[in-house]
Amino acid sequence: MKALDFKVNGFLFSGISAGIKKDGKRDLGLIYSQVPAQVAGLFTTNAVKAAPVLMDRRRIKGGRCQALIVNSGNANACTGSEGLRDAKKVASLVAKGLGIKESFVLASSTGVIGVPLPVEKVEEGIPRLIETLSPDGWMKTVEAIMTTDTFPKVAGVTCRIKGKTVRICGMVKGAGMIRPNLATMLSFIVTDANIKAPLLQRILGELAEFSYNRITIDGETSTNDTVLLLANGMSGHPPITKIDRDGALFQAKLLRVCQNLAKSVVRDGEGATKFVEICMKGARDREDARRAAYAVAHSPLVKTAFFGMDANWGRILCALGHSGIRIDPNRIDVFFDRMPIVKNGMGVGGQLEEKAAEVIKNKSFKVTVHLHQGKSQFSVLTTDLSIDYVKINASYRS
Amino acid sequence: MKALDFKVNGFLFSGISAGIKKDGKRDLGLIYSQVPAQVAGLFTTNAVKAAPVLMDRRRIKGGRCQALIVNSGNANACTGSEGLRDAKKVASLVAKGLGIKESFVLASSTGVIGVPLPVEKVEEGIPRLIETLSPDGWMKTVEAIMTTDTFPKVAGVTCRIKGKTVRICGMVKGAGMIRPNLATMLSFIVTDANIKAPLLQRILGELAEFSYNRITIDGETSTNDTVLLLANGMSGHPPITKIDRDGALFQAKLLRVCQNLAKSVVRDGEGATKFVEICMKGARDREDARRAAYAVAHSPLVKTAFFGMDANWGRILCALGHSGIRIDPNRIDVFFDRMPIVKNGMGVGGQLEEKAAEVIKNKSFKVTVHLHQGKSQFSVLTTDLSIDYVKINASYRS
Repeated sequence: MKALDFKVNGFLFSGISAGIKKDGKRDLGLIYSQVPAQVAGLFTTNAVKAAPVLMDRRRIKGGRCQALIVNSGNANACTGSEGLRDAKKVASLVAKGLGIKESFVLASSTGVIGVPLPVEKVEEGIPRLIETLSPDGWMKTVEAIMTTDTFPKVAGVTCRIKGKTVRICGMVKGAGMIRPNLATMLSFIVTDANIKAPLLQRILGELAEFSYNRITIDGETSTNDTVLLLANGMSGHPPITKIDRDGALFQAKLLRVCQNLAKSVVRDGEGATKFVEICMKGARDREDARRAAYAVAHSPLVKTAFFGMDANWGRILCALGHSGIRIDPNRIDVFFDRMPIVKNGMGVGGQLEEKAAEVIKNKSFKVTVHLHQGKSQFSVLTTDLSIDYVKINASYRS
Repeated sequence: MKALDFKVNGFLFSGISAGIKKDGKRDLGLIYSQVPAQVAGLFTTNAVKAAPVLMDRRRIKGGRCQALIVNSGNANACTGSEGLRDAKKVASLVAKGLGIKESFVLASSTGVIGVPLPVEKVEEGIPRLIETLSPDGWMKTVEAIMTTDTFPKVAGVTCRIKGKTVRICGMVKGAGMIRPNLATMLSFIVTDANIKAPLLQRILGELAEFSYNRITIDGETSTNDTVLLLANGMSGHPPITKIDRDGALFQAKLLRVCQNLAKSVVRDGEGATKFVEICMKGARDREDARRAAYAVAHSPLVKTAFFGMDANWGRILCALGHSGIRIDPNRIDVFFDRMPIVKNGMGVGGQLEEKAAEVIKNKSFKVTVHLHQGKSQFSVLTTDLSIDYVKINASYRS
C-alpha cells in the first residue's frame, strides 16, 4: 500500500504549520470523519498524564468521535488546570468550525513538558486546518505529529468483510522511544469498518499486548502516550458484533497494522543502529518470561554491547540474574539468531562462539534465551544504546 | 589519613602483576592477617554468582578468615563446576604457602565473564605474593583490584575503644558501575578491632543499607559484587559484644569508611561528569520512597539531561509517574539544591526557574523531590549518563 493509497471512506485529513515548532515544519493536524465514528483508545499508564490525555479518557467513554486535532511542539503536560482548559478550548473551536458536537472532538499533543500550550497559534491555525481537509491529506497529518522521527511511520491493509472492501490505515510517531522533552508515542488508526465501540475497545486492548506493549527503547513511558482507533462504518457492511469469522478477520488485519506501526517505532529508535528481538523461552509463567525479557531489553550494558557489536553474552546472563525471577544459571541456553552461544550457562567456545558472534554485526537479529524452567515465553522488540542516543537526549531544549 | 597511613595491626598486604591483565598492570593481590580474623561478608544478589562468591559464601559461615586473594582481569563467572574447582585450588595454594587452614582463605575475582581462570598464572604468582607481603603493601593490593577505575579508592579512620587505638581501613573498586565485562564492585575492609563474627555481620549488613546499597550508576548488579570485613582483634581492647557506647562508636566509624568508599565509587562512575544525590521525601512509606528514588536515578532520560545540563524537570516527573507507586502529580515539589524548580507539579517559571537551572551546571548537586504523600524518605547517589559511558561499554573485549 503506497502513501497515495491512504484513503479511507469518509475520512478527511489535513496538516499545517501553525508556528508551534520553531523550525516551521508542520505541527498541527486534523482527522475528520464525515459521520460520527465509533472510538476506542489506550492511554499512558504514567501517573503523570497530559491534559489532552485526561480529556480524551473521559470523552471516549461516550464511544463516539468525529474529529481529532493533534499538535507537536508542545505536550500540554504538567500544565495544571489551565492546561485542561486549553485542551477543551481547542476542541471546542474545532467543533464550532466543523459544526459538530464538542464531545465528539478529541485532542493529542506531543512536545515540551511544562510550557503552556500556545492557544492563539492553534486558534489561528484551525480555520486553515478545516479549509484544507481532504481525503488525500493523510501524509500531511502524519508529518504534523513527527518530532525526532527520521521517517514517517504508516501502515495500511484492506480486507473483504461481508462482501465489502474494508480499509484500516494507521500512523504512529515516537522516534522509537519515549521522550517527554520532544516526543511521545502517538498512534492513530482509522477504518471504515462497521463495529461498535465496546467491541472495538476490547479488540484494541488485546492487540496492544502483541504490538505497542511489546516494544521498548529505554524503558520509559511518557505523559502523553495515546493510541486512538476510529471506525466510521462507511464501508457499508453489516456490523461486526462478535469475534466470528468476520470479527476474527478484522482483528487479524488490525493486528498486522498495529504490529507494523510498533515495529517501525523501534526501527526509528533514537540513535538506534540495531533492531533486536529478545525472545524469552522456557519460563515458569508468562509474567516471569516478561520480566526476564524486559530485564535483558532494558539493560544498558547489554544495549551498549549490541551497539559495540560485542557478543558479550555474560551481560545477558547477568541481566537475567538480576531480573528478580528465579533462574538456574546452569541451565540457560542463549542463541543469536539460530547460532548457539551459551549452553548450560557457559560459552560454547571456539569456532561455534565465533560464528554466533558474527550475527550481531547484522543490523537486525534475534536473541533467544531458553531458561529451561517451564513452558512460557515472551518476546520484546528493542534497540541498542548508542552514542547518538545520549547526544540526542542531552541536547538543550532550546 | 594519607596513603602511607594505611597500616592496621597484624595485617600484611601485597600486589603484583601475574600476567592476567593484558596491559601488564598489577592484577593479583593478597591480604593476610597474622592471626585468624573474624569475618563478615556481603555478596551479590544476582542469581548468577561467580565461583569465588559461591566459595566465600560458604566459608564465611565459619566466621573466620586469615587470608584473602584477589585478582582482576578474569571474573571466574559462568565457568561452571570447573570454575569452582579453580577457585578452591587457588585458595588451597595460598593456604599451603602461608601454612594456614584452607578454610580460612577467601578469594575474589573481577574481569571478563565466561573465560576460565588462568590458574597457572595465579599459581606462578602466589609465591611472589607471599614473599612481598608487608604492612606497607596496602596500595599495591588496591592497584591489583583496579580495572577501569581512574583513581584508587580508599578510606580509613582511627578511634579509641576501651583505651586502645583502633584502625579501620577500606578499599573499593568499581569504576562507578557494575560492569561484568571488566569490572564489578569489590570492597575489602580490615580492622584490628576485637569483635566476633556474628555481631560484625549484623553491623555490616545494617551499614550497607546506608552506604553500598545507596549507590547506583546504571541499575545493574554484577555476578561478582563482594564486600568483606576482617577484624583481627590485635588492637588489644576487650571484645565488643553488643551495641553499647563502644559498639556504637565502632559502628559509626565503620559507617564513615563504608560511606566514603561508596561515594568514591559514584565519583568514579564510568564516563560520569555529574555526581547527583536524589532525595525522595514525603512518601507514604520507605519502600515507596526507595522505588521513586531509584526510578529517577535509573531513568536514562533524566541521566542524559543531567549530562546535557538541561534542567528538564518534566523528565523527573515523568520518571516518578512510571515508578509504579501512587502519586499525586499536582502536589509534587522539586528542588535543585535549595532552589525550587517545580511547585505543585508545575514549573515555577521565570527567573526562579532560571536560577534553579543554573544548579545543574555544577559537578555535584542534590535533587530533592517532595511527594507530599506521607513522611518517609530515601536518598540515593548516582551519576549522569554520558557519551563516554556508551563508548567505554561498547568497546570490544579484546
